[in-house]
Amino acid sequence: MYDCTIVGGQIITPNGPIFADLALSGDSIAAIGHGLNGERVIDASGCYVIPGGVDPHVHLQLALGGLVSTDSFSSGTIAAACGGTTTIVDFADPQPGQSMGDALAARRAEADGQVAVDYGLHMTIPTWHGQSAERLAEVPAMLAAGCATFKLYQAYARMELDDVALHRSMAAVAKAGGRVVLHSETGPLLDHLRAEAVAAGHIGAIWHERTRPACLEATAIHRAAEIAHLTGCPVHIFHVGCAEGVVEIVTAKSRGVAITGESCPHYLLLTADKHLGGPDGNLYICAPPLRSAADQSALWRALADGGLDLISTDHCPWTRSEKAQRSFAQVPGGVPGIESRLSLLHHFGVNRGHISLARWVELCATAPARLMGLPRKGILLPGYDGDVVIFDPKREKTISTDTLHEAADWTPFAGMTVTGWPRTVLLRGRVIVADEEYIGAAGDGEFIKRSVKCE
Amino acid sequence: MYDCTIVGGQIITPNGPIFADLALSGDSIAAIGHGLNGERVIDASGCYVIPGGVDPHVHLQLALGGLVSTDSFSSGTIAAACGGTTTIVDFADPQPGQSMGDALAARRAEADGQVAVDYGLHMTIPTWHGQSAERLAEVPAMLAAGCATFKLYQAYARMELDDVALHRSMAAVAKAGGRVVLHSETGPLLDHLRAEAVAAGHIGAIWHERTRPACLEATAIHRAAEIAHLTGCPVHIFHVGCAEGVVEIVTAKSRGVAITGESCPHYLLLTADKHLGGPDGNLYICAPPLRSAADQSALWRALADGGLDLISTDHCPWTRSEKAQRSFAQVPGGVPGIESRLSLLHHFGVNRGHISLARWVELCATAPARLMGLPRKGILLPGYDGDVVIFDPKREKTISTDTLHEAADWTPFAGMTVTGWPRTVLLRGRVIVADEEYIGAAGDGEFIKRSVKCE
Amino acid sequence: MYDCTIVGGQIITPNGPIFADLALSGDSIAAIGHGLNGERVIDASGCYVIPGGVDPHVHLQLALGGLVSTDSFSSGTIAAACGGTTTIVDFADPQPGQSMGDALAARRAEADGQVAVDYGLHMTIPTWHGQSAERLAEVPAMLAAGCATFKLYQAYARMELDDVALHRSMAAVAKAGGRVVLHSETGPLLDHLRAEAVAAGHIGAIWHERTRPACLEATAIHRAAEIAHLTGCPVHIFHVGCAEGVVEIVTAKSRGVAITGESCPHYLLLTADKHLGGPDGNLYICAPPLRSAADQSALWRALADGGLDLISTDHCPWTRSEKAQRSFAQVPGGVPGIESRLSLLHHFGVNRGHISLARWVELCATAPARLMGLPRKGILLPGYDGDVVIFDPKREKTISTDTLHEAADWTPFAGMTVTGWPRTVLLRGRVIVADEEYIGAAGDGEFIKRSVKCE
Amino acid sequence: MYDCTIVGGQIITPNGPIFADLALSGDSIAAIGHGLNGERVIDASGCYVIPGGVDPHVHLQLALGGLVSTDSFSSGTIAAACGGTTTIVDFADPQPGQSMGDALAARRAEADGQVAVDYGLHMTIPTWHGQSAERLAEVPAMLAAGCATFKLYQAYARMELDDVALHRSMAAVAKAGGRVVLHSETGPLLDHLRAEAVAAGHIGAIWHERTRPACLEATAIHRAAEIAHLTGCPVHIFHVGCAEGVVEIVTAKSRGVAITGESCPHYLLLTADKHLGGPDGNLYICAPPLRSAADQSALWRALADGGLDLISTDHCPWTRSEKAQRSFAQVPGGVPGIESRLSLLHHFGVNRGHISLARWVELCATAPARLMGLPRKGILLPGYDGDVVIFDPKREKTISTDTLHEAADWTPFAGMTVTGWPRTVLLRGRVIVADEEYIGAAGDGEFIKRSVKCE
Repeated sequence: MYDCTIVGGQIITPNGPIFADLALSGDSIAAIGHGLNGERVIDASGCYVIPGGVDPHVHLQLALGGLVSTDSFSSGTIAAACGGTTTIVDFADPQPGQSMGDALAARRAEADGQVAVDYGLHMTIPTWHGQSAERLAEVPAMLAAGCATFKLYQAYARMELDDVALHRSMAAVAKAGGRVVLHSETGPLLDHLRAEAVAAGHIGAIWHERTRPACLEATAIHRAAEIAHLTGCPVHIFHVGCAEGVVEIVTAKSRGVAITGESCPHYLLLTADKHLGGPDGNLYICAPPLRSAADQSALWRALADGGLDLISTDHCPWTRSEKAQRSFAQVPGGVPGIESRLSLLHHFGVNRGHISLARWVELCATAPARLMGLPRKGILLPGYDGDVVIFDPKREKTISTDTLHEAADWTPFAGMTVTGWPRTVLLRGRVIVADEEYIGAAGDGEFIKRSVKCE
Repeated sequence: MYDCTIVGGQIITPNGPIFADLALSGDSIAAIGHGLNGERVIDASGCYVIPGGVDPHVHLQLALGGLVSTDSFSSGTIAAACGGTTTIVDFADPQPGQSMGDALAARRAEADGQVAVDYGLHMTIPTWHGQSAERLAEVPAMLAAGCATFKLYQAYARMELDDVALHRSMAAVAKAGGRVVLHSETGPLLDHLRAEAVAAGHIGAIWHERTRPACLEATAIHRAAEIAHLTGCPVHIFHVGCAEGVVEIVTAKSRGVAITGESCPHYLLLTADKHLGGPDGNLYICAPPLRSAADQSALWRALADGGLDLISTDHCPWTRSEKAQRSFAQVPGGVPGIESRLSLLHHFGVNRGHISLARWVELCATAPARLMGLPRKGILLPGYDGDVVIFDPKREKTISTDTLHEAADWTPFAGMTVTGWPRTVLLRGRVIVADEEYIGAAGDGEFIKRSVKCE
Repeated sequence: MYDCTIVGGQIITPNGPIFADLALSGDSIAAIGHGLNGERVIDASGCYVIPGGVDPHVHLQLALGGLVSTDSFSSGTIAAACGGTTTIVDFADPQPGQSMGDALAARRAEADGQVAVDYGLHMTIPTWHGQSAERLAEVPAMLAAGCATFKLYQAYARMELDDVALHRSMAAVAKAGGRVVLHSETGPLLDHLRAEAVAAGHIGAIWHERTRPACLEATAIHRAAEIAHLTGCPVHIFHVGCAEGVVEIVTAKSRGVAITGESCPHYLLLTADKHLGGPDGNLYICAPPLRSAADQSALWRALADGGLDLISTDHCPWTRSEKAQRSFAQVPGGVPGIESRLSLLHHFGVNRGHISLARWVELCATAPARLMGLPRKGILLPGYDGDVVIFDPKREKTISTDTLHEAADWTPFAGMTVTGWPRTVLLRGRVIVADEEYIGAAGDGEFIKRSVKCE
Repeated sequence: MYDCTIVGGQIITPNGPIFADLALSGDSIAAIGHGLNGERVIDASGCYVIPGGVDPHVHLQLALGGLVSTDSFSSGTIAAACGGTTTIVDFADPQPGQSMGDALAARRAEADGQVAVDYGLHMTIPTWHGQSAERLAEVPAMLAAGCATFKLYQAYARMELDDVALHRSMAAVAKAGGRVVLHSETGPLLDHLRAEAVAAGHIGAIWHERTRPACLEATAIHRAAEIAHLTGCPVHIFHVGCAEGVVEIVTAKSRGVAITGESCPHYLLLTADKHLGGPDGNLYICAPPLRSAADQSALWRALADGGLDLISTDHCPWTRSEKAQRSFAQVPGGVPGIESRLSLLHHFGVNRGHISLARWVELCATAPARLMGLPRKGILLPGYDGDVVIFDPKREKTISTDTLHEAADWTPFAGMTVTGWPRTVLLRGRVIVADEEYIGAAGDGEFIKRSVKCE
């Protein structure tokens, strides 16, 4: 007799859907199959049973230039949970003079006890760390502390690593057995182009895209891939938005570079012309910027055929008033999206025929868990954590801030009607969302020590 | 209480190995997990538990120019079973004047009652069928009869389809919902080059490779990909042996063509220079021919990163005396390999670091089952057939005709010592190989109706 | 004292324009420079002095299915002369049962004594010749007779060569020291697609393009390039109209294949949507078909950077009434253009900034002369034939059948206003066009024996 | 009656060799043709008559870290003259705090009155200029002063420009109508890799190549091409030595980027393994480093088909004792070669069948003159400077410091026997080398104001 069984649903496996029941014991999956008996029985008839989503790229209560991103660890993870995501990976960002260890402790202090779902932290290697072999000596300790992945930037002051710092950092991460996750844009040139545009008096949001041309996203990936090749460091490219970027990733893969890439729902569903160029353009400013419909086609194809490996949200919300700046150059970058990822991908990906059900789960849960080093997450198999989503593929819902649990007073997906929404969500065996209602408690989630050692 | 449990082993899932037990009921997998009880218990301690291999490309008792390939449906499938392969797909080849339906019935008559493992049949569309819309009208009936895949040739007299016949056939298969499997070489030119070489007095086996240059394998794939694109027909390229061929497949995938590809152990482990150029050159004649070490590197990389999708054997054995012809142009083409596929890929692929355990199973079982339309094969999940291999990863074995069950008096892999061999094999819940000994009976295997409809 | 000097103009050399005079003695250029005195002095002040154009691809009085193309050797070459073209290369097409030698003699009998400008003949290798080693034995004799180039087709019944015939023919041409000029489309598939469209009741001219997709032009070039590579035969691709075709040529060049390519004014200036899709769609039917604006950009870039090598016209005129058929499939293919090539390229190429003056001359005269084996044509240097055009770069002219000398009652370029037109034209030292008026005589032109032996 | 005629030779034109005489008046070419009479007659029977070579990339009396490169403006230009090169382009390198104008004046003061052949100067934009819009304001003045080309570095301290400085500099050069010539290697990473190798105790010359991997040459070109694309600046890539670099140039060309490239004789004739890895390895240290035989094949093919545009020497000689350092990291980089360029390319290029005679002249004279903005140089046409080389294609010579006029006590080409050597050389109508003997005077050469405005 297992603690709990989830019966009557279709489990979405890597090989497609099967009719089978799921048994949980304690916080884990105990069995999958027929003839399983549970103390408690949850009916999943008519629904998909899928692993809890893993969102490897979110920014909750991010301090940035005097502001703090709109969602706290509490509100953001409740939104994640309601959207079917049971694990997130956020960031610890060492400040100047701060050690990685202190940054990790400080960030954990913000999250522990607050989070509704499990979480991990990427350790950022900012400029002053990347420039110093001594400060990189902390890398192995961070791996030991469960930060298996290191966030590097090729753009943004205070964060930006030049090629040497990139090489030095990647070499250190590779040696320690970690993985790099990378913001890949040619930062210095973008700053220069933006400064030129500002000097020329341009303020409209569309200039955000015009001063961040796709070729400078692609060139940065090209450089990063070469350095990954030279150092033997696995590198994951964050938020790929353009066809040129996909080409660089695919080409590097075929040369044997250990490179992977992700895209995000906003790149798949919004365009520069319509959204940055529209009346509320500032809202849609994020980096890299939104691109074109042609880029979207390339992204969908890459998601289907393995050119890209997973979907994250890069959830980084700001309020309408924070976004309301005179010039595009002053707008805090980022859009919300932590809650709607699974449903958007199901509706616009699966229902529209771009990807299969199995690939949907792979992109939203299995692949991010594997690549980010979460060995008990991302798939429904015995021994894995009991993170389960009962997803109703027939539930129709129009996305709106009225029903979302995200804290921002807007969402880029407002008004989109999707078919398919999470009904019930379990975190390590415990129901935290029941019939679309959040019933969990602060601190249900835990910090997960991650490890990306290959099997 | 399940009929049988397999306990103590590591199940190799698409996400890597897990420690879990497997329960079987009747001919199916009932559950996977912990706390499962079986009437019969099979100990798999220290072993991998993997789905039975699926070999989508074999030629048993193939009649060719007065000869018959060395392995009968009986001996060939016993060898397959002992090597951990529980499903094969062979071919039904309509003769001139014969309908597809008659060819299917005739071929099933040869196999049914004889086979030790399950089998399917590709339906060949030979020249005279491909040239005629009327004869292609049989395609839907073949799908209904369980032949979901259609073998087309771009080479070989009697088989060879020109571009129009290829287009017509692919259009017919696409419309009916099938998949094409393709021998892709530029046949007419190869015949011409061979005739020139013969006229010039060349007889050595190395001329087999010299008259089948890689560029003519690549060009044929290029043409086929365009026609697949025009007709919307999914096409699987058989036995890719050269880097140029991989490039064409990868390029077509990135354009959105529904194309897949396979390679075979002999392309990965043997080379033209050493084997065709050696004293027993004739033995190694197969088409496409063996290539170079550089090609092998490209093949391994493509198998790892998804450029190629699966591994078959193209098992087509002939005896030493049948291979002993005066000229390369008279040698029957093909090599044996049905028994050693899993172990060779485990040893040279997994142990050497080219591919992961999960990818090994994907290449040898899951992907061929999915692509060839075997919805109950290729993975260990509830509801799937109880085709299970208990694979001992420590078992060391030197490949030799003395211990193989294949009928040919030679093997291209003789003398290679591999680590890892199947210990016990179940077919639909029944043990047919126990401790490396075949204990099944003729007719254990069944004809499997296949369907490649997308999920 | 030279016979004649042309003074005061700008000579367009391969390195750009220079101010220099040109001296002629007899039929040849004697000197280029300053301080040259002539018996007769022609003033070229304000004009460009350029070599007579070489159009390597025209079809005069072509018999096709009971019709004869509108321009005779007389009218066509007068039009050529008036447009600044002093050498054309037409075709000798052996009929079934006819030897190449007889075809050459017959075609020369039609042209000799009629032509206003010099001419050469490509020797067509039709299907029945290409299929036979015996009939290809005539190739060396044709080279000796001055047919250095051999026209092969990958499309069109009676002409179409399959891969083996292509290989056999290219090998024969390569061995004899000739060059192949190629109509590169995947003929059998085009016929099949057209038949399907016709069967479906489509008749509009746009179906001409829809049944000849660009991928089948590119694939044919790909195949031809491989066979050129295998046989070592130089191959020139006629009438490239699509970006995909350019890619294949450029890729093959970078692999070291001796491949060149041309485009024609109608591909550069007309599009399928506007012209085939317009009310007079049938007029614009030619093969390969017109393509899109995006293709035109790719063509211009390739013409500028060396991806394509020259510009021909593929002049093949039919009257409006001959073009007026019920179905696209019945329309004789081809458009006129022999007279306007230089001016169109000057206006839309040079004036619009796509190509330099030097490249204009290279594309229209020097390159075709060199590639087609006319060692005394195509450039203004001592020892070369005195084929000279005095081109007024300021002359504005609206193209119209009223002023053209072409015989057809329409032109695809009607209404286009160009700046720049030939004022005076000399053929081997003799003025045949003076102040835009034709003053030559039938038979001024001669058959030129060509040789493509490398320097 | 012209001042001088050169009779009986074969003039190598862009369209191949012609038999014609050349007439000179004063310092210019007056005419080319037959029937020309000169006061003085020079017999060129049996010889090629070609334009004086243009070497766009040499470093004479270059001050570097306390040393000065071995050849002075005097000895270096005498060597150039004897080797058939009548124009060189060297560099003016502003020192910290020095204006471009002052640097130009200072450098001209070193050369004027000393040079045996004509010369121009590239203006270097070093780090501190590239980082400042104010200092870039000098660019238009430099163009007015005849420095049409600007040398930028992506490597080397004091020279190195990061992407922003590159963008700022290219934008300034593009706006002013100049061209950038570029040392393209990823400098910071190379420094880092070298420092690591040094720290690991490596001293051998082969480490020069190992710490400058080809991928970092290619990546730098990739970045430069993107910035050229963004700024619209024409860019010429100096000293391309690897196949990966060629690929980047060819790819950028096909995207429409105004990019050109050169290679040098040492990359074509020497390899890392043999020369850097040999006993005198230090001698062969130059940057980028020597590569492999496979790279050489790619370079030859690119030189033939237009992938690369010209041949320079990057002449930068040091004595054996200066090269004799304990560690590769201390060796001054550069090899001599100014005298043997034409003959090496004739022998290994033309005689070996890689390039035609016309392409030889194009690569060594016409293209460098055109791209570097020398409108009166590089071709034998009326109005051009009377820079003429009478080249004896049968003269056999074994290269040796005994007979070369270069000042260094070694040459990388020692012992190579070439067929073909300049017999007589004229500079602006004056014979400066007669029968292989230098008979000119210091100051025969002049500073040439260059302009790269398009025709």
